[in-house]
Amino acid sequence: MSSSHIVFSRRLRLTPFEQRAVEQGAKAFTVYNHMPLPSVYQSLEEDYRHLCNHVQIWDVSAERQVEVKGPDALALIELITPRDISRCQVGQCMYAPLVDESGGIINDPLILRLADDRFWISIADSDVLLWVKGIVFGRGMDVSVFEPDVSPLAVQGPKSDDLMAEVIGPEVRDIRFFRFIETEIAGTRVIMARSGWSGQGGFEIYLQDSSKGTDLWDAICSKGEAYNLRAGCPNLIERLETGLMSYGSDMTLENNPFECGLDRFFTLGKEAEYMSRDALERISTEGVSKKLVNLAIDGDSITAPRSTFDVLDQGGGCVGYVTSMAYSPKYATTLSFATVDIGSTVPGTSLQVVTDQGLRSASVRGADWQ
Amino acid sequence: MSSSHIVFSRRLRLTPFEQRAVEQGAKAFTVYNHMPLPSVYQSLEEDYRHLCNHVQIWDVSAERQVEVKGPDALALIELITPRDISRCQVGQCMYAPLVDESGGIINDPLILRLADDRFWISIADSDVLLWVKGIVFGRGMDVSVFEPDVSPLAVQGPKSDDLMAEVIGPEVRDIRFFRFIETEIAGTRVIMARSGWSGQGGFEIYLQDSSKGTDLWDAICSKGEAYNLRAGCPNLIERLETGLMSYGSDMTLENNPFECGLDRFFTLGKEAEYMSRDALERISTEGVSKKLVNLAIDGDSITAPRSTFDVLDQGGGCVGYVTSMAYSPKYATTLSFATVDIGSTVPGTSLQVVTDQGLRSASVRGADWQ
Repeated sequence: MSSSHIVFSRRLRLTPFEQRAVEQGAKAFTVYNHMPLPSVYQSLEEDYRHLCNHVQIWDVSAERQVEVKGPDALALIELITPRDISRCQVGQCMYAPLVDESGGIINDPLILRLADDRFWISIADSDVLLWVKGIVFGRGMDVSVFEPDVSPLAVQGPKSDDLMAEVIGPEVRDIRFFRFIETEIAGTRVIMARSGWSGQGGFEIYLQDSSKGTDLWDAICSKGEAYNLRAGCPNLIERLETGLMSYGSDMTLENNPFECGLDRFFTLGKEAEYMSRDALERISTEGVSKKLVNLAIDGDSITAPRSTFDVLDQGGGCVGYVTSMAYSPKYATTLSFATVDIGSTVPGTSLQVVTDQGLRSASVRGADWQ
Repeated sequence: MSSSHIVFSRRLRLTPFEQRAVEQGAKAFTVYNHMPLPSVYQSLEEDYRHLCNHVQIWDVSAERQVEVKGPDALALIELITPRDISRCQVGQCMYAPLVDESGGIINDPLILRLADDRFWISIADSDVLLWVKGIVFGRGMDVSVFEPDVSPLAVQGPKSDDLMAEVIGPEVRDIRFFRFIETEIAGTRVIMARSGWSGQGGFEIYLQDSSKGTDLWDAICSKGEAYNLRAGCPNLIERLETGLMSYGSDMTLENNPFECGLDRFFTLGKEAEYMSRDALERISTEGVSKKLVNLAIDGDSITAPRSTFDVLDQGGGCVGYVTSMAYSPKYATTLSFATVDIGSTVPGTSLQVVTDQGLRSASVRGADWQ
């Protein structure tokens, strides 16, 4: 079962852009942070081609925010990630893995610094709010944590700057990568960051009043025709080509940051207290026994597995499993992420994948799929 | 949009019974604790009629377990709920709302006491594991918390005892309500409790080895023909008739236990420390301004809303909103749960509901829909 029907209820929360997303052709969804997240408009491949050539508007409300505000805000943020957040300026975003006291990954959010003592944690699919609430209660910290009425909408694709310059003004071209400004669209104040879950460039626009979702969406679409704008969504093919991992698929609480290359986003030993310090220092010294790699699978397009495909070495021994996969038109091969034993991680290593269409040869690739 | 297509990925975790559920006709799902949960087999109404007359086997793996084990296990469990868990014997289950330091509901699980110092929290749809991990870290408690390899399968319906007596033996008839035994089915050890998310009687069987899901399912089905067993799932009509709330729909973190009648499961002032003590005592003294009620809506069956319908008083003022609804063949009316202002909660109160088919008259009912 790779797809089926879904039944919605109030528990799977309505998004402020959902009506427009459905009207404009969202025909399949996933569920992410207890909210629907569009997965397909025309088809995975047509959505991909359009995204790489034009510009799309995405309902990514499911990237929920955890707001952290008060005297202990920075101390709390520092505590939950090994990344040095003291270097994050107001107006800046940092991608920062949240790591527990055993080294397990809780989430891999973008953290936005709104003020010296105020942050948004823009989360992947796990209830970070509950974890942070537990820590704050247990420690008796002086900070409030809550989910604000904030819903991101993304504009992604190579024509994003041209479109948004027309919507807001030429100043959007000056927003640097992972920086944000506060501005107004359709009469509602938004935070607009140069960021997003693709490698095609663009912005994430944080709506702060869910009653204005349709207004915001329509204001952007009203300028879209010249840029061939259409509705879209995070695309599996594009994220694999770009090398973007998905929490829950490619890494879970069972993994530590070294196993999936997240250690490149921090250096151990920042000054502030962080809960994963002892665990990460130990793992760093001992080394890891498995790692997530880029694995190119030979042959025609294969149907992705419901859960995983096993990965074998040349002798037929199981050395790991696939976590995400899709056929890439650009590389004319199936791209996958796979967790494999440390002895099989060197680019160029020949492996095999047990698919539902039989054994397929595969090879470990570098970060750029070469 | 009340339904659409869903795309699965590894992030929406495979259940041990999923293959059988799909083969036996699950045709729509919801997502619950990052896992698919079947929602419909034949139709909501046909599933309901069968459940009330025969016996069904349900894949409720999505009721994940949080295991709490170690010297501080009882202290931790006591800390997170106002219910007095010291009274819970080994072999007993208790329904216990988890409540934070502000009085907000985190989840409404069943808690199973496996040993003096070992519990399972059998959760509704929120990441209780992360909340509990945060508390344990923050407090430095001596207890381990983790998600074990445990997946519940439910057998529900009036013929459950007859079926399970044939599968296991006559001793199942002696299991008291909310008590459990340890036994073996299809060569795998299971915990079997008299419990479940319906009012039709039956059991929840906790599989402890996910590689044995199909074996367990088939062993039960092999005895099913005489009882007209078929695959099913928690049913919206039946749960409304029985008065079972759903976390995320009928109550959220924004609600306190007094607002949704969960206060009947505890008395304030238990001996052990619990984090919600001050908040709940204050709310109990001040009273609440709104409450969840049973609301019967007149007229023909109505399509349930994507999120909510507004509830008006006789003067047309908005007094609340619907949280769940379905047409009940038994009561020949649409049953709903609605959160309404405290002045509109008395059974017999006449209200109106703003549906997509216009205004409908409605009346507040008692717990038994009378």
